[in-house]
Amino acid sequence: MLRMDELIRLALLEDIGSGDATTLAVVPAEKRSRAVVFSREPFVLSGSYPFRRVFELLDPSVAIEALARDGEKVDPNVPAFSLSGPAGAILTGERTALNFLQRYCGIATLTRRMADAVEGTGCRLLDTRKTTPLWRQFEKQAVLHGGGANHRFGLSDGILIKDNHIAAAGGVGEAVRRARAGAAHTLRIEVEVENLEGLEEAVSAGADIVMLDNFDLATTRRAVAAAKGRVLLEASGGVNLDTVRSIAETGVNFVSCGALTHSARAIDLTMEFYFTGSLSHSSAP
Amino acid sequence: MLRMDELIRLALLEDIGSGDATTLAVVPAEKRSRAVVFSREPFVLSGSYPFRRVFELLDPSVAIEALARDGEKVDPNVPAFSLSGPAGAILTGERTALNFLQRYCGIATLTRRMADAVEGTGCRLLDTRKTTPLWRQFEKQAVLHGGGANHRFGLSDGILIKDNHIAAAGGVGEAVRRARAGAAHTLRIEVEVENLEGLEEAVSAGADIVMLDNFDLATTRRAVAAAKGRVLLEASGGVNLDTVRSIAETGVNFVSCGALTHSARAIDLTMEFYFTGSLSHSSAP
Amino acid sequence: MLRMDELIRLALLEDIGSGDATTLAVVPAEKRSRAVVFSREPFVLSGSYPFRRVFELLDPSVAIEALARDGEKVDPNVPAFSLSGPAGAILTGERTALNFLQRYCGIATLTRRMADAVEGTGCRLLDTRKTTPLWRQFEKQAVLHGGGANHRFGLSDGILIKDNHIAAAGGVGEAVRRARAGAAHTLRIEVEVENLEGLEEAVSAGADIVMLDNFDLATTRRAVAAAKGRVLLEASGGVNLDTVRSIAETGVNFVSCGALTHSARAIDLTMEFYFTGSLSHSSAP
Amino acid sequence: MLRMDELIRLALLEDIGSGDATTLAVVPAEKRSRAVVFSREPFVLSGSYPFRRVFELLDPSVAIEALARDGEKVDPNVPAFSLSGPAGAILTGERTALNFLQRYCGIATLTRRMADAVEGTGCRLLDTRKTTPLWRQFEKQAVLHGGGANHRFGLSDGILIKDNHIAAAGGVGEAVRRARAGAAHTLRIEVEVENLEGLEEAVSAGADIVMLDNFDLATTRRAVAAAKGRVLLEASGGVNLDTVRSIAETGVNFVSCGALTHSARAIDLTMEFYFTGSLSHSSAP
Amino acid sequence: MLRMDELIRLALLEDIGSGDATTLAVVPAEKRSRAVVFSREPFVLSGSYPFRRVFELLDPSVAIEALARDGEKVDPNVPAFSLSGPAGAILTGERTALNFLQRYCGIATLTRRMADAVEGTGCRLLDTRKTTPLWRQFEKQAVLHGGGANHRFGLSDGILIKDNHIAAAGGVGEAVRRARAGAAHTLRIEVEVENLEGLEEAVSAGADIVMLDNFDLATTRRAVAAAKGRVLLEASGGVNLDTVRSIAETGVNFVSCGALTHSARAIDLTMEFYFTGSLSHSSAP
Amino acid sequence: MLRMDELIRLALLEDIGSGDATTLAVVPAEKRSRAVVFSREPFVLSGSYPFRRVFELLDPSVAIEALARDGEKVDPNVPAFSLSGPAGAILTGERTALNFLQRYCGIATLTRRMADAVEGTGCRLLDTRKTTPLWRQFEKQAVLHGGGANHRFGLSDGILIKDNHIAAAGGVGEAVRRARAGAAHTLRIEVEVENLEGLEEAVSAGADIVMLDNFDLATTRRAVAAAKGRVLLEASGGVNLDTVRSIAETGVNFVSCGALTHSARAIDLTMEFYFTGSLSHSSAP
Repeated sequence: MLRMDELIRLALLEDIGSGDATTLAVVPAEKRSRAVVFSREPFVLSGSYPFRRVFELLDPSVAIEALARDGEKVDPNVPAFSLSGPAGAILTGERTALNFLQRYCGIATLTRRMADAVEGTGCRLLDTRKTTPLWRQFEKQAVLHGGGANHRFGLSDGILIKDNHIAAAGGVGEAVRRARAGAAHTLRIEVEVENLEGLEEAVSAGADIVMLDNFDLATTRRAVAAAKGRVLLEASGGVNLDTVRSIAETGVNFVSCGALTHSARAIDLTMEFYFTGSLSHSSAP
Repeated sequence: MLRMDELIRLALLEDIGSGDATTLAVVPAEKRSRAVVFSREPFVLSGSYPFRRVFELLDPSVAIEALARDGEKVDPNVPAFSLSGPAGAILTGERTALNFLQRYCGIATLTRRMADAVEGTGCRLLDTRKTTPLWRQFEKQAVLHGGGANHRFGLSDGILIKDNHIAAAGGVGEAVRRARAGAAHTLRIEVEVENLEGLEEAVSAGADIVMLDNFDLATTRRAVAAAKGRVLLEASGGVNLDTVRSIAETGVNFVSCGALTHSARAIDLTMEFYFTGSLSHSSAP
Repeated sequence: MLRMDELIRLALLEDIGSGDATTLAVVPAEKRSRAVVFSREPFVLSGSYPFRRVFELLDPSVAIEALARDGEKVDPNVPAFSLSGPAGAILTGERTALNFLQRYCGIATLTRRMADAVEGTGCRLLDTRKTTPLWRQFEKQAVLHGGGANHRFGLSDGILIKDNHIAAAGGVGEAVRRARAGAAHTLRIEVEVENLEGLEEAVSAGADIVMLDNFDLATTRRAVAAAKGRVLLEASGGVNLDTVRSIAETGVNFVSCGALTHSARAIDLTMEFYFTGSLSHSSAP
Repeated sequence: MLRMDELIRLALLEDIGSGDATTLAVVPAEKRSRAVVFSREPFVLSGSYPFRRVFELLDPSVAIEALARDGEKVDPNVPAFSLSGPAGAILTGERTALNFLQRYCGIATLTRRMADAVEGTGCRLLDTRKTTPLWRQFEKQAVLHGGGANHRFGLSDGILIKDNHIAAAGGVGEAVRRARAGAAHTLRIEVEVENLEGLEEAVSAGADIVMLDNFDLATTRRAVAAAKGRVLLEASGGVNLDTVRSIAETGVNFVSCGALTHSARAIDLTMEFYFTGSLSHSSAP
Repeated sequence: MLRMDELIRLALLEDIGSGDATTLAVVPAEKRSRAVVFSREPFVLSGSYPFRRVFELLDPSVAIEALARDGEKVDPNVPAFSLSGPAGAILTGERTALNFLQRYCGIATLTRRMADAVEGTGCRLLDTRKTTPLWRQFEKQAVLHGGGANHRFGLSDGILIKDNHIAAAGGVGEAVRRARAGAAHTLRIEVEVENLEGLEEAVSAGADIVMLDNFDLATTRRAVAAAKGRVLLEASGGVNLDTVRSIAETGVNFVSCGALTHSARAIDLTMEFYFTGSLSHSSAP
Repeated sequence: MLRMDELIRLALLEDIGSGDATTLAVVPAEKRSRAVVFSREPFVLSGSYPFRRVFELLDPSVAIEALARDGEKVDPNVPAFSLSGPAGAILTGERTALNFLQRYCGIATLTRRMADAVEGTGCRLLDTRKTTPLWRQFEKQAVLHGGGANHRFGLSDGILIKDNHIAAAGGVGEAVRRARAGAAHTLRIEVEVENLEGLEEAVSAGADIVMLDNFDLATTRRAVAAAKGRVLLEASGGVNLDTVRSIAETGVNFVSCGALTHSARAIDLTMEFYFTGSLSHSSAP
């Protein structure tokens, strides 16, 4: 997490600007409070690290108790965190902390649904690089928390030869040959293909993994048959809650889904405060 | 944009890591290409700045031509940008550039729909602080590009006294008094209330703006009547494409909607390459 | 203070360069010392945070005891801080720590004098944006410690329409209308005017606050009468210890003074060391 | 200047925050302007670099013409700079640019007066390390622009053994011996002394330079006589416009003055705009 | 190179500190010069990028002409670069620029010798992660320029299971199984083994690559025979100019050598200046 | 060390990239280990600070015990450090920590040999500015740990007038005069000369130190005789283990040697792990 703390600090500063005008003026400096975080809907928890760091960076005297672990399902109205400390610091950090948490819980929750859908098929659900700039690490962890697996992190830890690379190299064979010669021998070679001919070409050229781009179900099945286990197969395109099980059942090794990270709906989270001697909400947790 | 370039640079490095293994090995260094960006669905453009900067920071020799302006509606299959230059640089920057663009176009497109829905009511559609950490500036601009307006940017350029602030201060009157005394005189004071009694209390205490938190339509109408123009009214909670027009028609001055920025679906964008003498796609733009 | 620690660290490095050549060579590494900070003249304390952080960042084993609080008046020769720890670290940090302290004490002391001068008039003494680049937060706090109040922090948390903005917009009315339409509804609108006609124009246009720029006393009084409480009035220009009371007595709500931050004389501070068994000064605190 | 640009950028961001609310809302984006910078009082120019960089970093399309060089005396109402370009950018950068310029011109102007006062004596006027944190480079340049000379920049490019170092080392002789043995041979050794016995001790110990700390005039003269040219002498303490000439005439090699950088009064500078077809001021430059 | 410019800038500042005291005082600001860089010994060029960037960052008006390309052999006394521009800037940047160049040329030159030694064997010469902190990218490029190939860049773009990982996991089989399950499918799995039993175990467990750690020649030959092409083999340990050919001839796919980057002797480079009308050296290039 | 921590953190990130793929997948998170660091060859320890900081920055729960102090000779197979804590963190930090340590131990060990060679001559062994960019502070400390002394740190804390400076200034006399007039009086002036005439010229011009550039032994002796103690003499060029004693015995005050920092061979260090209940190596420390 060495890399992320500075970004979390900057995110906090983005919200605070030159100071929390409301809290500084309105909340007595000595006021202390307890607060809990929960949702009205069920969700899978993810994002505990940035949630916690926001407050630790802002004011180390805020005590944060995790009531659930990343990857755990949390029921409606059940608190996932309990905080206590200076009311001002908790109020100032609230929005930034929740902006992290609502998103990673959203990703984990959606991933959990899709991972459950492919359960038992032997096919693994993968994320993509369609993530929010600068926050890929947390988003890929949210995918893990939801029961998915991670594709390569970025451009340096995997070789994925797409149609444009092939066109630039002058053919699948040449592209794979160049990759083998020029890249570190520690990386496998994945090639994206548009049809069954492409698959055969890629296999012949020595690809380790083949991504089937937007294949329909029937063609995907034929690809699995044609590959005969010589390469790993990854289905990509049109993957959603309705389609993912059928695709997985074709026998491909992986399905990858960009929507896990780029379009998951945020979980609606509430932070409720309990001031000593003065409850701000009538409901008790 | 002085502040954002460093973040865009870091975002690019997040994806590149120690190098684009595929492109470095597969694409000849001297290979040049043209590429266009379009979608299969209609959308409102936003995010031109980070899209462009990704390539400018990566390789200033990539030429980028904007074929549409931020805020403009772009039809399906019509290119929004045309790029030309070293194929390697365009391939390396593609994903990061699209990760920005797909999200801001998503926000602008959703905002446009909701802004259209309230047209003619005199009510303005506002965003919130429920944004992606570090990218608030681009997300708030996307709201403007979609025809919405911006609420305060962060904690320092507006006073918004919420229920917890009121509880901490010991009442609405005391909270407003403290805000007036302690904060810069250049800021208005907004107070969040839960019911009509709260509204009256806030008005008496000297609030400039009152946020009606999760009021139903009938109560919102009564709030408008009760306020008699003494304060500006902002409706918040439960605002979506189905409800926004009815809320706006109650006569409130503003409706604010967090989903504009936290849950807009990303626009599915494609970057298509045209190598000299070898088209990688059969379709022409 | 999240934002300031990095700047304090850089300030310390500015002085240290590649190392404190004198201390490293001359002072035995194991030597410990106590030291106190005082002045030969009375002053109002401000700057405790950066003073303390310099040593904490340099060597956490230096213990720092505050003998006075920010905002408190400190008598001549009475110590404001007592430090103890490695003599080398205290010597290395001394100049940087005092460079902060001497300036913020200078600002607080001048502000205190001017704030005392307007006491009882109901008029508040404001600072301006004429501050030292990068250190505005500490300088504005020094103004608070001296009994003044803060004008907007920067360009984003207040609207101040000056003569050049008006000229660019094409008139006061148009400028205010644009500000109301284009800026967040959480900000008040302040307009700078040159004469009584300008004041009337600004009030009619809907300004919330009017800054009277370099009005003489008589005209300021007429402005107060003309405003009839419809707007807040801020007097600016020619404000100093000799004039501030008369201006305040005209009935304006605020007087603002740039010299508080740009030209306050530094307080002459001394750090006196007491080595175990060997006093470096004959005088005892 | 490699080091300073990032600080200037941060200083600009300090003022801009999340955006210049007034200018963005009020000034048409396409509006262009010319502007000049002058003062009502005479001054010595310094700070051209940061003044210019503020605008270059903000918007490279702003053209800046220097009408005077650093170190030059500028008469009242005579422009030192002429700018032209987008009115919005000039307005947004104005305050930050002037905050730099007003201070460095203030330092250069004060230095010029004191340097003129010692002219012909053969004594050089020096600054100290009592500078504004992070801006020492510009402040020391302002001293040069005013005709002064620079003492060491920081702790690593000069050895200055003060009373506390001597006490820690256990005597002048031991301190000098340690400095000679432990520090780079490229540095001279300066020792601060309190009286004539100290001077003799320092000379015997092999000091290269001796700082006479708060010596009165008569004792300073005796020190010059006693030193017999064996060391360089620097007078320090109580140096101001009234005293500097007399001190210089004693025959010391240097006088050093902290007030040059810590308490120079800022020069009152004005930026006047000329919009095409609409002058915002009646006076012409 | 997006990542390296900031480090190069910091490296330049490390040397310059608060300013180049000698050049600023001694060299007239308007003085211009030409300079060439050469060595008394033959070498393979590498490091052109940081060499060039030092001057570009310091003063863009310095013109740099490359007389050789990275990877090219340069003869004794033959210039590799020619520079012209302000003499002061060239003198100030000289040492930092040469500190980069001397090291990368040293690595490329040593690598060239060892790569030549294995020529024709079909075995590739690899570097390791035993590089200088922060400068791995340039050092790995120097290996390429010398005719070697790169092993993984760092911990994220390759899986290398060493003895300690195996011990922690509880055996080779379990370690490989965990790697396959937990790491991205885009990475190959390399396992380090101590003897022939280890090799067999690793192959059975499904390793893609096996590193033979400090095998003697005879055992290496038996490993090649035993592997039967089922895995790639990398010989490691005791690799130097004397041994590399024999090791390569055993039939392993790779030999890796840490000394390429951690102990290459720096090339002794000279920068010779030619001032207009005054040559500083009698010899002409 | 205020400046170095950020660089150490970046160095760690350089190696880790997006994550230690092997350790994360293979090593159980709860696994703990002890580890020791030793070499098969004798060496002088240096680099304890960065070695320790790597682990502290990565995971503060790793406990590090130093079994030797910087500057101490360590025998073969004797551990210099003992670590215990989470096995994963120790494995992830191992390479970066050793990359620092192996180099600084290499420099200290070489320096120790050369310093021993000049022992008793009264001549001090100096380093140069031929260091690794960004790591000069650690390399110069390693020279101290090996018994050498430091020349100036960089361009701002010493004046060294080389042949090119002299040519630019128009002669030795003019160069020295300019240095005396333009640079801080706290710096001595060193001049590099090519022959005995140059030496005389430099002495006459008022140099404090003269560097004899590539003088042979006989000429060096004549230079010592000619200087008659009027200046300090530094011999430079052709200094190595074979020559250093003879040069030192000529009577020069200093010999300087670039190879100490640019070409010292790295010490081959091993980190050996001891898992609870499962030793990964048979040998015990």
